[in-house]
Amino acid sequence: MEALAANGTASLQSAVAGVTAVSGVAGKRRFEEQRSVFDKRLRFSVRQTESAYRYRDLVVKKQDGFTHILLSTKSSENNSLNPDVMKEMQSAMATAAADDSKLVLLSAVGSSFCFGLDFIYFIRRLTDDRKKESIKMAETIRTFVNTFIQFKKPIIVAVNGPAVGLGASILPLCDVVWANEKSWFQTPYTTYGQTPDACASLTFPRIMGVASANEMLLSGRKLTAQEACAKGLVSQVLWPGTFTQEVMVRIRELVSCNSVVLRESKALVRNANRAALEQANERECEALKRVWGSSQGVDSILKYLQKKIDEF
Amino acid sequence: MEALAANGTASLQSAVAGVTAVSGVAGKRRFEEQRSVFDKRLRFSVRQTESAYRYRDLVVKKQDGFTHILLSTKSSENNSLNPDVMKEMQSAMATAAADDSKLVLLSAVGSSFCFGLDFIYFIRRLTDDRKKESIKMAETIRTFVNTFIQFKKPIIVAVNGPAVGLGASILPLCDVVWANEKSWFQTPYTTYGQTPDACASLTFPRIMGVASANEMLLSGRKLTAQEACAKGLVSQVLWPGTFTQEVMVRIRELVSCNSVVLRESKALVRNANRAALEQANERECEALKRVWGSSQGVDSILKYLQKKIDEF
Amino acid sequence: MEALAANGTASLQSAVAGVTAVSGVAGKRRFEEQRSVFDKRLRFSVRQTESAYRYRDLVVKKQDGFTHILLSTKSSENNSLNPDVMKEMQSAMATAAADDSKLVLLSAVGSSFCFGLDFIYFIRRLTDDRKKESIKMAETIRTFVNTFIQFKKPIIVAVNGPAVGLGASILPLCDVVWANEKSWFQTPYTTYGQTPDACASLTFPRIMGVASANEMLLSGRKLTAQEACAKGLVSQVLWPGTFTQEVMVRIRELVSCNSVVLRESKALVRNANRAALEQANERECEALKRVWGSSQGVDSILKYLQKKIDEF
Repeated sequence: MEALAANGTASLQSAVAGVTAVSGVAGKRRFEEQRSVFDKRLRFSVRQTESAYRYRDLVVKKQDGFTHILLSTKSSENNSLNPDVMKEMQSAMATAAADDSKLVLLSAVGSSFCFGLDFIYFIRRLTDDRKKESIKMAETIRTFVNTFIQFKKPIIVAVNGPAVGLGASILPLCDVVWANEKSWFQTPYTTYGQTPDACASLTFPRIMGVASANEMLLSGRKLTAQEACAKGLVSQVLWPGTFTQEVMVRIRELVSCNSVVLRESKALVRNANRAALEQANERECEALKRVWGSSQGVDSILKYLQKKIDEF
Repeated sequence: MEALAANGTASLQSAVAGVTAVSGVAGKRRFEEQRSVFDKRLRFSVRQTESAYRYRDLVVKKQDGFTHILLSTKSSENNSLNPDVMKEMQSAMATAAADDSKLVLLSAVGSSFCFGLDFIYFIRRLTDDRKKESIKMAETIRTFVNTFIQFKKPIIVAVNGPAVGLGASILPLCDVVWANEKSWFQTPYTTYGQTPDACASLTFPRIMGVASANEMLLSGRKLTAQEACAKGLVSQVLWPGTFTQEVMVRIRELVSCNSVVLRESKALVRNANRAALEQANERECEALKRVWGSSQGVDSILKYLQKKIDEF
Repeated sequence: MEALAANGTASLQSAVAGVTAVSGVAGKRRFEEQRSVFDKRLRFSVRQTESAYRYRDLVVKKQDGFTHILLSTKSSENNSLNPDVMKEMQSAMATAAADDSKLVLLSAVGSSFCFGLDFIYFIRRLTDDRKKESIKMAETIRTFVNTFIQFKKPIIVAVNGPAVGLGASILPLCDVVWANEKSWFQTPYTTYGQTPDACASLTFPRIMGVASANEMLLSGRKLTAQEACAKGLVSQVLWPGTFTQEVMVRIRELVSCNSVVLRESKALVRNANRAALEQANERECEALKRVWGSSQGVDSILKYLQKKIDEF
């Protein structure tokens, strides 16, 4: 999505040559029909939203009928999440909840979607005061995850690249997930020496069954976009060449829907599980406090970071 | 299934030439072994059940060990559901619940399975008295859906063609779903300006995960029979040429089972979710009342019907 | 896995020629890197654990960081389960729960994984005193299944061959399930004239949706390893030629994880469902008492056994 953030029309033009969606011919036809309208709107929206660049780690664009939130972190690498990034996300989502946006489109600038927790940030603090900081970290995550659980408008995710750890586990708390075919999905929690977050201990088994869920949660199995789609983590895989365009066509269609129907439909699906999700979040954050509060937990993160450095 | 309703033996003969099931060689062998017995039975059952044509919108055939209910609506198009059709279904199911049927086989006459709610019927009444009629409509649906939730014998569905809206959302309230390869599945609720029905807000996310469920419920994504099978909405896809025969072979096998075991097995599966399903039905019908009771809701249906007319 | 029990190094050597995992190139590379270390460990472990052969129907090997329990029944055919086998399993699991094992690896010696209940054992007793013995049987199963529900360390299953009835339904109560491509999965309960066991009435619909679950539970549909994987019953399918080796490489990786993280992760996933699982087990065992306590239930088992004898 980086091209879109920088220059929507350029990416559009370069895409026009090879405009065929993975989802097939219907998508192509639909896209071409809407291209001219779309082209105009994009130019407009990029100009219109230049003033909205008031976030450090996000690009937030209020568009016609929806809010587009793009991870574009300056305080962390690979769009990974530290308290600053998480707070900006919460703030952007609160704004979108209050204005006339019918939905939120969540994506990222660059080649990564989100690499999960920013362990470089966390390890500095953990080595200072393990007990206090592990509680603080877990509380930050708890609030961030509850923001997703309790959000009342549909959250549509366009996964442009790797979604790792918390960057992958947050997806089932959103509503529709479209993935670029180059993206991949992994929750290598045991490698970080941590337990699951963002309700993955509840949502992953429900979505793909315990056998597959545990292979991701315990063994850190990496899924391709197609595998993630087959297992139900992703709604549909789209062709990289026209990913942004295909997503936008679908978003326009959704935005043309009655906003009451969108909100009520989301509420029906979410309310069936909301209490269970909040409880899972609670249990997971308590486990994280126990793990990160132990010397073994801190050692695991250090070992993981050391290994990452050694790989370069 | 239309041929079967009209003339079982004719469809059988035409099918014999190309008799290979999608499910493979085993099915073929089994079918041929049972063909002669089957042939005789069919002729008998068509003759025997001529007297059972006492429904206007259904064909109901009491067969040896089961009841075959076929949608064949005269009061609506494409087997779509209005209060009359729903009441006949409930009556036919009540009869099957009380007699010696071990199970119900649900299918349809014609090239469609069921196109969901009969909006032409509903819109007339809604424009008369929105508040009153929206409550009445929602209550009719609530009772119809509860009939499926509370039915104690296995319901096997043979989906012969498109299953749309309520015609698709009702499937997870049945037990086994065999689909003709030509069938397809869609719940374009937002196009009708309505919220989900028949517990789809609960069952769809549980079966295929939130990401796929919301793509159907919010974006109205259409699934082929194979896609619906991969996502768990359908048990197995069968070859069109021998669809009726393949279904009947499987039904005969099921009917040969101990009826206590069938009923107890169904109860074990259903009772784990029965309360949750009833609550979901309740919540969904309350949402439908709110949506249809609003002027925006009625406008959405009118717009949808207008668009359908314009397409011709 | 039989070769491993008998002579781990032999099976290793014969496998080296064709060393490619179904799961692909990454697996192959990883396997070859770890081969030399692995080779040494295997020779050691086989020697080391010879003293552990104190079970009649199991082979239990305490290894470095985990306990390997292999079904190898002498009191029943095809690793099927009678009270003696179940009690040995419970005893081996209790030992693994108490010692320093981080996890349990469950597999089987021979070409079958487990053919479910040992009906030859049960029918003798049932024909003696139906009421009393049906209660006893159901209670034995209840305790056996609760052992799996309540086990606190990860249970990894390596399915080497057919998993039938209780041998298949127990899998979703474990954590990760790797299957040899030659294995298959079936729960032909209605053929035995029984209702589901090991919480399959709850877990199967949750994992694969009601439509597929009921096709297995009511119609006894047999799944290939690949189908079972697509439906979520199995985590991954591995190539027969290097099955044992591939499993061991993965087990070593899991065993290298922080044991607190493994236990806490398992607890998070399990505790979300533990009460529901215990209730399902309770309901299923009550249904089994009713079915087996009836003359029709005993007749069904007799008919099933007669048919099996006739097939030879």
